[in-house]
Amino acid sequence: MQIQYILEVVGTGFFAISGALAANDKAQPDWFGAGFIGFITAIGGGSLRDILLGSYPLVWINDINFMYAIIIGVILASIFFKVLIRLRKTFFLFDTVGIAMFTIVGTEKALSLGVHPVIAAIMGMFSAIMGGVIRDVLTNEIPIIFKKEIYATACLSGAMTYLILDYLNIERNFNFILSALLVIAVRIVAVKMNLSLPKFIKEDKAP
Amino acid sequence: MQIQYILEVVGTGFFAISGALAANDKAQPDWFGAGFIGFITAIGGGSLRDILLGSYPLVWINDINFMYAIIIGVILASIFFKVLIRLRKTFFLFDTVGIAMFTIVGTEKALSLGVHPVIAAIMGMFSAIMGGVIRDVLTNEIPIIFKKEIYATACLSGAMTYLILDYLNIERNFNFILSALLVIAVRIVAVKMNLSLPKFIKEDKAP
Amino acid sequence: MQIQYILEVVGTGFFAISGALAANDKAQPDWFGAGFIGFITAIGGGSLRDILLGSYPLVWINDINFMYAIIIGVILASIFFKVLIRLRKTFFLFDTVGIAMFTIVGTEKALSLGVHPVIAAIMGMFSAIMGGVIRDVLTNEIPIIFKKEIYATACLSGAMTYLILDYLNIERNFNFILSALLVIAVRIVAVKMNLSLPKFIKEDKAP
Repeated sequence: MQIQYILEVVGTGFFAISGALAANDKAQPDWFGAGFIGFITAIGGGSLRDILLGSYPLVWINDINFMYAIIIGVILASIFFKVLIRLRKTFFLFDTVGIAMFTIVGTEKALSLGVHPVIAAIMGMFSAIMGGVIRDVLTNEIPIIFKKEIYATACLSGAMTYLILDYLNIERNFNFILSALLVIAVRIVAVKMNLSLPKFIKEDKAP
Repeated sequence: MQIQYILEVVGTGFFAISGALAANDKAQPDWFGAGFIGFITAIGGGSLRDILLGSYPLVWINDINFMYAIIIGVILASIFFKVLIRLRKTFFLFDTVGIAMFTIVGTEKALSLGVHPVIAAIMGMFSAIMGGVIRDVLTNEIPIIFKKEIYATACLSGAMTYLILDYLNIERNFNFILSALLVIAVRIVAVKMNLSLPKFIKEDKAP
Repeated sequence: MQIQYILEVVGTGFFAISGALAANDKAQPDWFGAGFIGFITAIGGGSLRDILLGSYPLVWINDINFMYAIIIGVILASIFFKVLIRLRKTFFLFDTVGIAMFTIVGTEKALSLGVHPVIAAIMGMFSAIMGGVIRDVLTNEIPIIFKKEIYATACLSGAMTYLILDYLNIERNFNFILSALLVIAVRIVAVKMNLSLPKFIKEDKAP
């Protein structure tokens, strides 16, 4: 559990970095704005999950280490911006590991509160993606998850896998790693092969 | 109460259908995105009401039937899209019945938690309209309720009517039906006669 | 405390007025829409703070006077629109006093619930600015706090000052007034001198 806690805190810091960088692409905020958006990106998903579940206190309000990770993340993002941009591929990997981890952590937390597995899967997905959705809404973009790339669906498939393996009494740590790896694999394969889900409704072809 | 419960579950499914269709008009989401927006549209209003009131657990988290209704709604929306588009008028009716019912259900729930009637009326309106508002924000539209049509005001007038009749000790089921019918009537008359509220502030005429 | 309560209620009404006027600049809503946006602007920040902290019931749900202040504010905004527009400078002052007060009230409330001072400062800032952020999101604008003017940072500096003076055992009323005055001073100086924070990341100059 010690390792997982460290990963969660560090992962939150990474989310803040990627939030601040993504915000800069769009709205060209000042220092404060970039930090604010990084902060919202990092805490948004987990906060929404806990508010919907009525699980208080919120993780980042209860444990100040998450806040410190966010503050450090935003500062690093600004100082090492040019390096970070060049490391875009490394970053994609960090982001993917991050959403994988948060998906399973969120699923477990919801499950531990006694909700139905379908709800737990949604809460796992929310933990991973809703910070980014809120960031996109604040910067006046249509959230990317509605438009392209297999992102939220990767999280959802990992959450469902975790729930099935949990139901089959697979050992918890093994299950955690396996399900998280599935999220990572689905996301990487989807991006590499430029996969996307079919459009909800096909556009009519001109006659 | 049995009938009301069935209506609520079915109504939630209808909200998911109309949310998915409305999302498709705007953002052309993939399958997942349309389902996600349908889901948010269906649960958004009631969730916001319950979070503001601190009433846990949220209805759809506590009772999985609502989730099933949403999933079925989204699948039906996709399969029968062309039929549903042709049934636009029928759909308008379903939507109107839906907001009428959710307005009164939400008003009753808030009242049962002991809040002031003015707050209860707002919570009833929120139950009916805020799912659509959140949908519009996510798809980067200015929520329609700020721009035209008597929509939220129909809900508010129904909620206030319910509260007045409740204060006058009118029998509950009779009151429920009467107030809901008022919402429906106001909405239909407003659309048929193309009524709208006056602009908040008149635009200055050029000299 | 009596004076502070009256100031809070009146301040909420002022927030509703400025929300309704700001909404009118952008989305040209009808009467209902302007009132709705004024309402959201007035209650948004405090509601978000209380929801994040799990502090129920929300202030405006518990005490109907806040709701009355909002309703009166919106009605006044509409009737006296032309006068209010001409009073823009007076209004800027009221708004500035309002965010100063709400910042310190929010910081105190969070602190009284036992959170870490860093969290308390964020909650104080949220109380003051998030109503306006939600208003901007609903009217499809990029929230101004991400773009220009020292606004949220003025609140944050006031909240931090309060926390430091509180730590140094400065008398509460004196601390309240001093920290609020700092918010007001920072904001006024920033606007007068057209100060802004540096951009998060400088735009690349063309070679």
